[in-house]
Amino acid sequence: MSLTPTPADKFTFGLWTVGWQARDPFGDATRGALDPVRTVNELAARGAYGVTFHDDDLIPFGSDDASRRGHIDRFKKALAETGMQVPMATTNLFSHPVFKDGAFTSNDRDIRRYALRKAMRNIELAVELGAHTYVCWGGREGAESDAAKDAYVAHERMREAFNVLSQYVLDNGYKIKFAIEPKPNEPRGDIFLPTIGHALAFIYTLDHPELVGLNPEVGHEQMAGLNFVHGIAQALWQKKLFHIDLNGQHGPKFDQDLVFGHGDLKSAFFLVELLERYKYDGPKHFDYKPGRTEDDKGVWDSATANMRTYLALKDRATAYRNDPRVIAAQKDSNIPGLTENTMGAGESWKDLSKDSFDVEAAGARGYQYEALNQLALEHLMGFGK
Amino acid sequence: MSLTPTPADKFTFGLWTVGWQARDPFGDATRGALDPVRTVNELAARGAYGVTFHDDDLIPFGSDDASRRGHIDRFKKALAETGMQVPMATTNLFSHPVFKDGAFTSNDRDIRRYALRKAMRNIELAVELGAHTYVCWGGREGAESDAAKDAYVAHERMREAFNVLSQYVLDNGYKIKFAIEPKPNEPRGDIFLPTIGHALAFIYTLDHPELVGLNPEVGHEQMAGLNFVHGIAQALWQKKLFHIDLNGQHGPKFDQDLVFGHGDLKSAFFLVELLERYKYDGPKHFDYKPGRTEDDKGVWDSATANMRTYLALKDRATAYRNDPRVIAAQKDSNIPGLTENTMGAGESWKDLSKDSFDVEAAGARGYQYEALNQLALEHLMGFGK
Amino acid sequence: MSLTPTPADKFTFGLWTVGWQARDPFGDATRGALDPVRTVNELAARGAYGVTFHDDDLIPFGSDDASRRGHIDRFKKALAETGMQVPMATTNLFSHPVFKDGAFTSNDRDIRRYALRKAMRNIELAVELGAHTYVCWGGREGAESDAAKDAYVAHERMREAFNVLSQYVLDNGYKIKFAIEPKPNEPRGDIFLPTIGHALAFIYTLDHPELVGLNPEVGHEQMAGLNFVHGIAQALWQKKLFHIDLNGQHGPKFDQDLVFGHGDLKSAFFLVELLERYKYDGPKHFDYKPGRTEDDKGVWDSATANMRTYLALKDRATAYRNDPRVIAAQKDSNIPGLTENTMGAGESWKDLSKDSFDVEAAGARGYQYEALNQLALEHLMGFGK
Amino acid sequence: MSLTPTPADKFTFGLWTVGWQARDPFGDATRGALDPVRTVNELAARGAYGVTFHDDDLIPFGSDDASRRGHIDRFKKALAETGMQVPMATTNLFSHPVFKDGAFTSNDRDIRRYALRKAMRNIELAVELGAHTYVCWGGREGAESDAAKDAYVAHERMREAFNVLSQYVLDNGYKIKFAIEPKPNEPRGDIFLPTIGHALAFIYTLDHPELVGLNPEVGHEQMAGLNFVHGIAQALWQKKLFHIDLNGQHGPKFDQDLVFGHGDLKSAFFLVELLERYKYDGPKHFDYKPGRTEDDKGVWDSATANMRTYLALKDRATAYRNDPRVIAAQKDSNIPGLTENTMGAGESWKDLSKDSFDVEAAGARGYQYEALNQLALEHLMGFGK
Repeated sequence: MSLTPTPADKFTFGLWTVGWQARDPFGDATRGALDPVRTVNELAARGAYGVTFHDDDLIPFGSDDASRRGHIDRFKKALAETGMQVPMATTNLFSHPVFKDGAFTSNDRDIRRYALRKAMRNIELAVELGAHTYVCWGGREGAESDAAKDAYVAHERMREAFNVLSQYVLDNGYKIKFAIEPKPNEPRGDIFLPTIGHALAFIYTLDHPELVGLNPEVGHEQMAGLNFVHGIAQALWQKKLFHIDLNGQHGPKFDQDLVFGHGDLKSAFFLVELLERYKYDGPKHFDYKPGRTEDDKGVWDSATANMRTYLALKDRATAYRNDPRVIAAQKDSNIPGLTENTMGAGESWKDLSKDSFDVEAAGARGYQYEALNQLALEHLMGFGK
Repeated sequence: MSLTPTPADKFTFGLWTVGWQARDPFGDATRGALDPVRTVNELAARGAYGVTFHDDDLIPFGSDDASRRGHIDRFKKALAETGMQVPMATTNLFSHPVFKDGAFTSNDRDIRRYALRKAMRNIELAVELGAHTYVCWGGREGAESDAAKDAYVAHERMREAFNVLSQYVLDNGYKIKFAIEPKPNEPRGDIFLPTIGHALAFIYTLDHPELVGLNPEVGHEQMAGLNFVHGIAQALWQKKLFHIDLNGQHGPKFDQDLVFGHGDLKSAFFLVELLERYKYDGPKHFDYKPGRTEDDKGVWDSATANMRTYLALKDRATAYRNDPRVIAAQKDSNIPGLTENTMGAGESWKDLSKDSFDVEAAGARGYQYEALNQLALEHLMGFGK
Repeated sequence: MSLTPTPADKFTFGLWTVGWQARDPFGDATRGALDPVRTVNELAARGAYGVTFHDDDLIPFGSDDASRRGHIDRFKKALAETGMQVPMATTNLFSHPVFKDGAFTSNDRDIRRYALRKAMRNIELAVELGAHTYVCWGGREGAESDAAKDAYVAHERMREAFNVLSQYVLDNGYKIKFAIEPKPNEPRGDIFLPTIGHALAFIYTLDHPELVGLNPEVGHEQMAGLNFVHGIAQALWQKKLFHIDLNGQHGPKFDQDLVFGHGDLKSAFFLVELLERYKYDGPKHFDYKPGRTEDDKGVWDSATANMRTYLALKDRATAYRNDPRVIAAQKDSNIPGLTENTMGAGESWKDLSKDSFDVEAAGARGYQYEALNQLALEHLMGFGK
Repeated sequence: MSLTPTPADKFTFGLWTVGWQARDPFGDATRGALDPVRTVNELAARGAYGVTFHDDDLIPFGSDDASRRGHIDRFKKALAETGMQVPMATTNLFSHPVFKDGAFTSNDRDIRRYALRKAMRNIELAVELGAHTYVCWGGREGAESDAAKDAYVAHERMREAFNVLSQYVLDNGYKIKFAIEPKPNEPRGDIFLPTIGHALAFIYTLDHPELVGLNPEVGHEQMAGLNFVHGIAQALWQKKLFHIDLNGQHGPKFDQDLVFGHGDLKSAFFLVELLERYKYDGPKHFDYKPGRTEDDKGVWDSATANMRTYLALKDRATAYRNDPRVIAAQKDSNIPGLTENTMGAGESWKDLSKDSFDVEAAGARGYQYEALNQLALEHLMGFGK
């Protein structure tokens, strides 16, 4: 199988990913700014399907209307010339000092209202560029001390914000949905809606839950030591996987934003296996950062690396799924048993008492998971044939 | 303020907590079994309000009907003599080998059905003993390898189980609600519904979501590095805090089940502050383990320690909340600003464009959280007066 | 390359690994006891080189001298018949309640002395069986509360214990060395000498540091989120890698003891690459636990899985190391530059001032690590050819 | 007891702490630059003992000799006017892009030599300002991928660097010692010498180990989930606690640099108890960051908060240590038993066989740690009287 990406693979990148200038908490930038037009061209040349952006990635914060339009028009021209798509956009509600205590949950009502205006303005642009997903990462919605925020009330303010934005989209007839991106911490000590679960639960409190789903990120769940594959399975099951951020992370520590697969490779394998098996057909969006050690060449090499890794994993996962030895091992492990309903058609709890069951015999049976897991590992390593 | 507990404080303990025989993954039991009757008496003597139990705590697994009834009757007599309540009960779906691959999500359909029967039988007893909450901790619902379980399908099976149990309760007219207890891992490598958020989100998929809420445990959230106070705030806000498990934990590692407050004390302070301010009136249930180093005396000392810590924290939190310096500092931090609606009465998103706003000035204002947090710390340490 | 193990690969297993009966903090045993003689035979049949043991694995705690000798003789017979070696042994200073507060650092002097006797007795047996390494895992040396132990003094007691044991070995002319196995926590809240680093530092305080080295375990370092490859590199560099425990772990959580490679596969790849390149020639010892879900068949499958994974990784690492593209990429990344001494022959600090250096030019150069890392990943996945 | 700091308390602050402009990975600066002269004056007015600095904190990177001297002279004048001391200094080997792949372990030999020159130049200034400790934090010495660095060789280069610097200090007769500051990760994926243990072990490989000790930081150890009190105890015991960095952290996540005590308060209590009991007499150095939400007032409030917390903890620890109930409880827990030598005067291992010992009786005794720990907690909360 070829590891060369094509637009049919639907790989997308944020402007801010390859464009990261590699300024970190302890160091200055090591790379210059990237022109978004160049990014579009470079990524198109490498087989990507599209790009995504925060308002401030494309249009420097504080630009006047004329220069804003200039930035947009240049960008649209590059998109048109390359055929690149913009399936998603998002708002930067975290870089400017005004958001230092949050945007939708700032203690300052005027800031909350300003944040809504900033989001609405960029939703309009997102629609103009053809996006169908609008991501909301509330990176500053949180606190370092429990004294600083009434977290109960903060959730109420968060709800209000999504209700306003949903009404805005409905009133304008925009064909765009929201995708909340959870993260447990960093830059805040603790961020509200810290995991796939918390954000998913929150959606059910909204006026228009059908308009809101999730944009889970590999590294964000793994920063909490959680199983990303399980989280994605739950999001898919609750029909809320609207978008996905692929990258790499080495467990609970700062947000690494490594190339996809450059963290927990085994989890990445099972993730791709799940996405492909359940026919996730949204963009595969890489939200990563090229290492601060890299120059311009390294930036583009790393972009390619993300896509190659996905294709490599897809190849291995396909072989795994179709290997007759694997299918037999899954049967040994009674994997198909989980797909049967627990209750027969028409049965109620009263029927359960009719079962006869040998608890000791059932307890003695082995599940043969070690053998199955080893088969998966060997497939992942290319020893599956 | 007195640190001596009384039943009015509504402190409860699981039989399995003081009753833990201190067998751990690397060591044998260091204490003998505790008679549940003695536990009722000892806890009553120390000011507790009630006890809770798993079926197998009270009635040894595999008991016949007659000896089962004997165990129950002795227990009820002790309750009657002491006035101790049983506000909650739960099922042991994790100790016996039959559940080694899960109960409601076992790959084996017969085991799933057996697990439902076991739960229903104990719900009936819970009702007999006057419990209004039935906790479901799915400690074996999970996997060590993503090859072993289709996590998507597992959620479907979990949903089926709660639907069956809800119908059972409704059909019998029982006045009892379910409380799911999330945990990220241990004993399984990863457990389904790993956090407050994931469990909360799951509830909305059920046939009778009104019957199901949460039983969050301090240590379980902290094993994922999550802010427990935030999680409880979200659960309260979504009206799903049906019960709570108080204990202590030192961050991501094995489940320590320390005495309440013996882990992250500052978080415990803000937790009590939140529970009291939002008038949580359920039992304060301690789900902890007396250290394996302790003998019988240490067991009861540790039980008392849990209650004293809660009372000490409540005292400090009350003084903190009412201190005029704190109220002034909260105003400096604009804490009250978060309680205002972001949108005025009758306003829509269109009205936001009328605001005038100085983004740089708003960005320059400080939030004075360091001063407020230090005030909290000094109150916690008794220097607040 | 064949993934079939042979004794020349020097793979060893603890009796307690395949012999684990799968009792965990929340569940009863799911498997019966294994006869050590059967373990020797089964492992020999699968290509292992040898076995290792705790005293209590081979000889039930409290056995009298005659039955002790009986157990030993049966075991020796099995070894002789199979050609299996016993390159390492160790003491169980953690299961019995007497060690609940530690062995070498128990607050009780009599227990400390008893622990030394127990260790010496098993060292004698280790020598009889031909072992050259004696592992010391101080699983109970620690505390749940900083109130419980004076950690300063505990280190002094630990030093005394190793000095006594070293003198015992020297006085008897035994050809055996000690290898300390660090672990950060579990079963204690915090264990003394928690990492490779802390144990390594401790060795330099001993009367006979030349007799004491390390037995690092993959999962134990990863429970602290530390890079195991870095730790092993430091241990090798300080000439203290006396033995190694291979297994798998998913970051900071309970001690999982998964099959080698079934945790962080990428780290396992670089570990094997390092061990092979630096010609580590001790046993490759698997200290893992077959999943609690497994029956007898699963136990032996999992034993084989450990060995196959090592061989698979060795194959991939060899191809990686010798690939001309990798060698060229390493040159692009200036990997060889690190092997040059920083100071020339005969240079002193005074000579440094003679350098001319363009700091901005040096800062602008990229390191091309993304490309090199991707090459490694593709080799690991079998796409390297 | 007064919580008002005085110079006799020996509290010191890095210029970079209060001077942090609050730029983080996701946001721009929220505060302007602080003039070091103002910092000296403000801290002196609040009762601090001294300040510490990186070369680039005092003298902007790239300054010529004349302006360098100007910066130094202004600073010295402020010190003289206030009586503030400079007990420690350090080098910035992490901010400039030239160090993006490390300083002493850069793959580029010219960069390694430049880093040594930069360090030596600032050591000279440190001596001029009266410092006796020179801290070395190798924040860029590490890697994101194990492919990028030969960690074995990196340790050799690190050793070479410390040997050169030690020779430089000896040749010049400087009365200054080095203190290595370990950190597990951030800004690098993994940093070499990641914990107190690893750095301590490394010191023994140096040409002049007597010149090199440690500067452990609360948050850095806690980022690895390690017990800081245990680490400090080991460092003290190995006579290598040359300096200490006090701050706060909430477990494994990004480096928070909270105010001291604003993370794990119970650990901070036992830390102060240990430092005071073992009469640590170096500076208590706060290496923290005022929250990004804070303005200038918040900066100075947070500086004061650090000092007040230390004094509050010292007060509580003193009361705890001297409380007769605590002394009695420690006896119940046999804490004094650990201070006795395990071996009597003149005893050898042979004498151990003379002991008589009842293993079951010893195993049955309880350690009463729960009661002792609760006493500590109540003292910490001011309920100890």
